[in-house]
Amino acid sequence: MSHPHPELGAPPALPKDALRVIPLGGLGEVGRNMMVLEHRGKILVIDCGVLFPEEHQPGVDVILPDFTYLKDRLDDIVGVVLTHGHEDHIGGVPYLLKLRNNIPLIGSRLTLAMITAKLKEHRIKPTTIEVVEGDHRDLGPFGCEFIAVNHSIPDGLAVAVRTTAGLLLHTGDFKMDQFPLDKRLTDLPAFARLGAEGVDLFCTDSTNAEVPGFTTAEKDLAPAIETVFRTAPGRVIVSSFASHVHRIQQVLDSAHRNKRKVAFVGRSMVRNMDIARQLGYLDVPRGLVVDVKELAKLPDRKVTLVCTGSQGEPMAALSRMASGDHQIRIGDNDTVLMASSLIPGNETSISRVINGLTRRGADVVHKGNAKVHVSGHASAGELVYCYNLVKPRNVMPVHGEWRHLQANADLAIATGLDPEHVPVVDDGVVVDLQDGQVRVVGKVRAGYVYVSAGNVGGVTEESLRDRVTLSQEGIVTVLALIDIDTGKLVEPPEFLTRGLGADDSLFDDAIPSIEKALAAAASDGVGDPIDLEKRIGRAVTQWAGRKHRRNPLVIPVVVEA
Amino acid sequence: MSHPHPELGAPPALPKDALRVIPLGGLGEVGRNMMVLEHRGKILVIDCGVLFPEEHQPGVDVILPDFTYLKDRLDDIVGVVLTHGHEDHIGGVPYLLKLRNNIPLIGSRLTLAMITAKLKEHRIKPTTIEVVEGDHRDLGPFGCEFIAVNHSIPDGLAVAVRTTAGLLLHTGDFKMDQFPLDKRLTDLPAFARLGAEGVDLFCTDSTNAEVPGFTTAEKDLAPAIETVFRTAPGRVIVSSFASHVHRIQQVLDSAHRNKRKVAFVGRSMVRNMDIARQLGYLDVPRGLVVDVKELAKLPDRKVTLVCTGSQGEPMAALSRMASGDHQIRIGDNDTVLMASSLIPGNETSISRVINGLTRRGADVVHKGNAKVHVSGHASAGELVYCYNLVKPRNVMPVHGEWRHLQANADLAIATGLDPEHVPVVDDGVVVDLQDGQVRVVGKVRAGYVYVSAGNVGGVTEESLRDRVTLSQEGIVTVLALIDIDTGKLVEPPEFLTRGLGADDSLFDDAIPSIEKALAAAASDGVGDPIDLEKRIGRAVTQWAGRKHRRNPLVIPVVVEA
Repeated sequence: MSHPHPELGAPPALPKDALRVIPLGGLGEVGRNMMVLEHRGKILVIDCGVLFPEEHQPGVDVILPDFTYLKDRLDDIVGVVLTHGHEDHIGGVPYLLKLRNNIPLIGSRLTLAMITAKLKEHRIKPTTIEVVEGDHRDLGPFGCEFIAVNHSIPDGLAVAVRTTAGLLLHTGDFKMDQFPLDKRLTDLPAFARLGAEGVDLFCTDSTNAEVPGFTTAEKDLAPAIETVFRTAPGRVIVSSFASHVHRIQQVLDSAHRNKRKVAFVGRSMVRNMDIARQLGYLDVPRGLVVDVKELAKLPDRKVTLVCTGSQGEPMAALSRMASGDHQIRIGDNDTVLMASSLIPGNETSISRVINGLTRRGADVVHKGNAKVHVSGHASAGELVYCYNLVKPRNVMPVHGEWRHLQANADLAIATGLDPEHVPVVDDGVVVDLQDGQVRVVGKVRAGYVYVSAGNVGGVTEESLRDRVTLSQEGIVTVLALIDIDTGKLVEPPEFLTRGLGADDSLFDDAIPSIEKALAAAASDGVGDPIDLEKRIGRAVTQWAGRKHRRNPLVIPVVVEA
Repeated sequence: MSHPHPELGAPPALPKDALRVIPLGGLGEVGRNMMVLEHRGKILVIDCGVLFPEEHQPGVDVILPDFTYLKDRLDDIVGVVLTHGHEDHIGGVPYLLKLRNNIPLIGSRLTLAMITAKLKEHRIKPTTIEVVEGDHRDLGPFGCEFIAVNHSIPDGLAVAVRTTAGLLLHTGDFKMDQFPLDKRLTDLPAFARLGAEGVDLFCTDSTNAEVPGFTTAEKDLAPAIETVFRTAPGRVIVSSFASHVHRIQQVLDSAHRNKRKVAFVGRSMVRNMDIARQLGYLDVPRGLVVDVKELAKLPDRKVTLVCTGSQGEPMAALSRMASGDHQIRIGDNDTVLMASSLIPGNETSISRVINGLTRRGADVVHKGNAKVHVSGHASAGELVYCYNLVKPRNVMPVHGEWRHLQANADLAIATGLDPEHVPVVDDGVVVDLQDGQVRVVGKVRAGYVYVSAGNVGGVTEESLRDRVTLSQEGIVTVLALIDIDTGKLVEPPEFLTRGLGADDSLFDDAIPSIEKALAAAASDGVGDPIDLEKRIGRAVTQWAGRKHRRNPLVIPVVVEA
């Protein structure tokens, strides 16, 4: 069961005693996690996140799951369980709530605080159900139980879903740090108890399934962070995810011990740290955190700035400091601590930031040269423990590119599961659980929905292809004044090029091809401007390919004289 | 001396007893390595490579050093020393020889064979001087001595250059593998001897200066490669750089031991392996290598394919196999061995290849999950040995991004050099060596020269910016028929958009802005079409920003009716 199913059609009607599972995002990519559960006519959604675009998706802000499958069934949705507060799990919620704004959101205190703040920017006031680990909630035919898990943001929850078709356990994003800063361990006794009850389908986080061994404990970063604060000759500038409360706690603790003050820089950093502090997830010694303006009055040795931009996002504070485009000017005496991961796909932009900072004289400490980051996801060793502890009937790897899903499946199989019980599937593939066995039964729409300049769905795969052609080949507009009677050019056509890296006059050489095309049109009796535009477009495209091995977008415009 | 020098101007005249060093490429980037040495009116060039473009440089084939500084002094060039046969050291030679085709090329046997094959494609027959380690050659006022170095391609050379201004030692790319397959060690005794003589300026490879410790020996990959060949149930498909003769030797040896046949796939792989075999650098057991068609007749367990595409290059064999666009169809029984590095910037495309292959059922072995690659560059530990062995007066880090150059400088300083003797400089910065001291004295042009569709210099920074805007924002052509007398629109303007992700009709809403701009023009007495186009362009741009927060390229076209 480890292959894509291009041949699949629409799924059959769902039998009454079956549970249907449809990943609408997150399987085949790192991001836009969203799983739809269906049972007895009702729908429960687990997470609704966004995916961040790659460089071949220019001008795209974020990528959403395709909600088409849900559009006619919005009233059947009994709720959206949010496992934790990361963008790739909650970022799509505002767009889903625009379809029906009273869908209940179920999550922990911090998770709900984060989604509520985000929804406020979209002017949506959500219906929320706050839960804590150990809670049970019936949502329609889905009996949900929430289980504490440890991750790179506090207050993460796994969810067990009991139905008459069986018990599903979904880890969300998790790892098994045995010494978490908040002492809130991933609740393995609960996993074991559910295993004893019988887990029919275990959906597990695949992100780090390729990584051997065990993920290092968060607290093991303390020595490297402390060294930075103890030895930095001037300011310390820390970048981190704006949601990594525990990492920032460690930074605050080190700053405090070394008699420095701290200011937060960047909108999302300020907002999230406010939330975390107000709700008691972040412990801030009195007087430690001050305003940036206050900080400017202190000597450099007393200064810590905590800012966004750990992934090299061009508009974030750290990137702008690296390119000299921020009010905070980086110099010889500064130490920059990038206390964050390197998300695949961001390597080039992160390296650009490190080069920019180094060039300005800063000493840059990052995961490549010091132990200042650990992952938030369970490594292979932890996953194997889980499988042996839970002894599930079926395992469905979630959260990851195909290579991660396959590696996770291989781990489950290594613990003794039969490959038939470990479906490796793509977004949109419909998996039914019935009588303790999973079956792939169909496929629904699950493509990318692009948000560009705030506009949902406006950018299509076709316009992205156009954009890539535009960027690689440029564009030429051909303006042709044509005599309506003779079908001939009244004057030489005008060529307007962009991004071509060539003089417009280069195209004058294409005029004979255009004249030939027009003559052929006249002898074919073709005179309609739209048809003439097509012929001119073809003539110029062929000429560019033949003469210059180029393939610019050609926009022919015929004006009748 | 560790900062960029934006304030620098043109360098002064070179004193007779000084040696001038100008890096035209490779300092601040990984690629297009090129160093110009000047002394007593003559010029010696060390390497002339290309840089491969990043995703923000769409449609660019390769990036060259800027040869402007050399253009008026072509006849002063006494030769180009090529340290080894990699593209980032020889790829720019054809473009330099187009300026003067009889510049002598100096290099080892394999290096010259590779550049000669490349020049043949450009229809250039070079003047070559073949040298071997230990050779001395006087090139004008430059007394050159060649020293064996070990790297990820055979036959690499460092070069010592004696002048009346002092002795320069340039490592080229190198590492210090103590058990190289060809038994050709980096000649540390020669380094020591030169050190005793007195090295005034030591230019060293910075690529791996951030990597602690020592680079693993090539031969230590043998167990992992052998395991693949011993245990693969079907075909083994190996990807590697087409120039990594020793890696491919290990693959051939394992294939032979396990009674498999081998075919080479991909033009550069076939060409280079032919050269390496003919010159005796690759030892191929009789009957081992066969044609791809021969191979197709054998059972899968007897098959090895060695192909290009280890960096995820979209047109290379492996990428096309991963996307199902190659005559070799990947399936369940295949094992793919990516026996190659991951060049920074290629992470996303390599991951796309791994996902594609995994999805088709292949088992993919790569440096992330097995010990199947070692770097070709000296790590920090090796560089430190070099500094302590050579005891140079001055060190100038070469080959690397700023972070690598700075890390390398820090290593030299850690061995006792004064920072004043370790210039960290950018491409184009002019460094003079006189009386045993280096001084930064000026700056020359050293920007990127883009080759796009074979056309040198046609693509400029401006057209690349246009391309990026085109890809992120799209383009709209506005066709306005205007009454020459009234300056008013004869009919509603036509809007033609590409890559915008929006209906063309969206722009109808911009017509009032255009009418307003035209009315203002009429009342200002402006009627020239070019001026009207400017005003229309501005009106549409402002409208798009105000109403839609978009910034497409706008091409206004005014036709007089």
